[in-house]
Amino acid sequence: MPNYIVSPDILIYIFDMIGVIACAIAGTLLAQHKGFDIAGCILVSMANAIGGGTIRDVVLNRHPLFWMTDLNYVIVITITSLALQIFFHLYHKIDTALKLFDAVGLAAFSVIGLKVALSQGVAPVIAILMAVCTAIVGGLVRDIICNEIPLVLQKEIYITASVIGSCFYFLLDALGVQTGMNDLITLGVIFFIRVLALRFDWHLPSIRLVK
Amino acid sequence: MPNYIVSPDILIYIFDMIGVIACAIAGTLLAQHKGFDIAGCILVSMANAIGGGTIRDVVLNRHPLFWMTDLNYVIVITITSLALQIFFHLYHKIDTALKLFDAVGLAAFSVIGLKVALSQGVAPVIAILMAVCTAIVGGLVRDIICNEIPLVLQKEIYITASVIGSCFYFLLDALGVQTGMNDLITLGVIFFIRVLALRFDWHLPSIRLVK
Amino acid sequence: MPNYIVSPDILIYIFDMIGVIACAIAGTLLAQHKGFDIAGCILVSMANAIGGGTIRDVVLNRHPLFWMTDLNYVIVITITSLALQIFFHLYHKIDTALKLFDAVGLAAFSVIGLKVALSQGVAPVIAILMAVCTAIVGGLVRDIICNEIPLVLQKEIYITASVIGSCFYFLLDALGVQTGMNDLITLGVIFFIRVLALRFDWHLPSIRLVK
Repeated sequence: MPNYIVSPDILIYIFDMIGVIACAIAGTLLAQHKGFDIAGCILVSMANAIGGGTIRDVVLNRHPLFWMTDLNYVIVITITSLALQIFFHLYHKIDTALKLFDAVGLAAFSVIGLKVALSQGVAPVIAILMAVCTAIVGGLVRDIICNEIPLVLQKEIYITASVIGSCFYFLLDALGVQTGMNDLITLGVIFFIRVLALRFDWHLPSIRLVK
Repeated sequence: MPNYIVSPDILIYIFDMIGVIACAIAGTLLAQHKGFDIAGCILVSMANAIGGGTIRDVVLNRHPLFWMTDLNYVIVITITSLALQIFFHLYHKIDTALKLFDAVGLAAFSVIGLKVALSQGVAPVIAILMAVCTAIVGGLVRDIICNEIPLVLQKEIYITASVIGSCFYFLLDALGVQTGMNDLITLGVIFFIRVLALRFDWHLPSIRLVK
Repeated sequence: MPNYIVSPDILIYIFDMIGVIACAIAGTLLAQHKGFDIAGCILVSMANAIGGGTIRDVVLNRHPLFWMTDLNYVIVITITSLALQIFFHLYHKIDTALKLFDAVGLAAFSVIGLKVALSQGVAPVIAILMAVCTAIVGGLVRDIICNEIPLVLQKEIYITASVIGSCFYFLLDALGVQTGMNDLITLGVIFFIRVLALRFDWHLPSIRLVK
């Protein structure tokens, strides 16, 4: 293993926390918009930030769940949600930052989901599904709780970025790229696809019923 | 055990796949109607086709989940959903077929749910609940994701057909009917109740609040 | 251990069943209002009454689920829901009773959730989360199925009462109060906070977005 100044695992943990913060913010904003109280906003934040990983772990029978052993998740989400509810007037200044944070989260959650699934010995296609699950199911549950049509199923370069990144991971792995390096490259690929999609407003075609 | 040309297990697997295809079609149609993109439609199809079985297995602590070891499910759903999105203009021709497929699925999913639950050693009433769960929770999750009032809770001969079929299974079992034969008879009973309900527009009374 | 006329465990089981009945009634009322059929109403009642405990047990990897070994839950819910659908015209007379039943349920579910989580050896903050999960997720799932904005996230002294009660439990435990007594005191604290909140229409501030 080569020498890194910061190990890939620590970098991914940092990116993971950035994603968690982005999800907590997105969840709190929608919950406030729906008129939920302080406790309700925190709960929606939690669903948004750790819902996907929870369903991934339950489906993979991986116990105890990641947020039960590492309390940082629950603490970071609660503090983020409370801070946002107190200083909500700063919202307009965090809008662009939120999109970047969210893209970091998409990338980190996908890579973590992929690696967790592979560590449980599932088939590659299931691992890709678990990457998508980790990355988007939190936002799905948030929108379901708030009675909204799920956003992540509409802005399609979201799921697609996660799937392309996961395929890239398997390609690089087959080419013999070392794991820690591969994690970071995959994370970068997903992040840049998402940012480019945001920047140039990319969309996959959505075929509507004629009726 | 008597000699069958095709074993009951293989027949039920075929009926299961017909049900999976019906669910994938129903999920894709609603998701398209909601304006979801290609990836979103595939995801809703998966929720519809394997959501009920997933919750049944999680609740029964039966790991790995059925679609993790048999990749046919994920593959069949993805191909069905993609094919439908490409050839969607054929929709009007598949409408009647879809209802029959869906009835096959209701019957196959119920029998599979019942047998899986019994193989885990639960009480009969819980096994009936798991049959209903396998048969309807996928459609429930589809409607929840798409922000619709769940259809399966309204066209009531749906759940009822599953419950009657399950009770029939226990009756025949008590009468000493051999398992493979019993599976097929139960499957037929549920299928015909559902088809008759569709044909003659049967409904259980729904008591509304007076207010 | 001191001598009780009725043991705290039996008392909590009775309060638990009162809560289950309250949830079954609330679920049936909303499902009827949505025009669901008899089977649909029973299913929503079950989601409401045992949904939170189910997710708690799945998340804590505690199998078999509580309602699989103790069939009283499924039976009590089915009978309650059916009785209400048959004698629905009595609704106006049970409105006040329902609110009290519901408060008993909130208290009993919270205490049970807290103790189950602690028996699995999780951290206190996770145990508090599991108490909230047991108490409110059933109502959340009910509202999600019925396509409504979740009520429990809006009438905030609901979650708050559960959290305050749980904190109280840890405080009394640290002070050396014996477990059975502590359970009953905590249950009483949550019940009275909720009843006072109902009586005096208490609300936590809900900070809305300015835009």
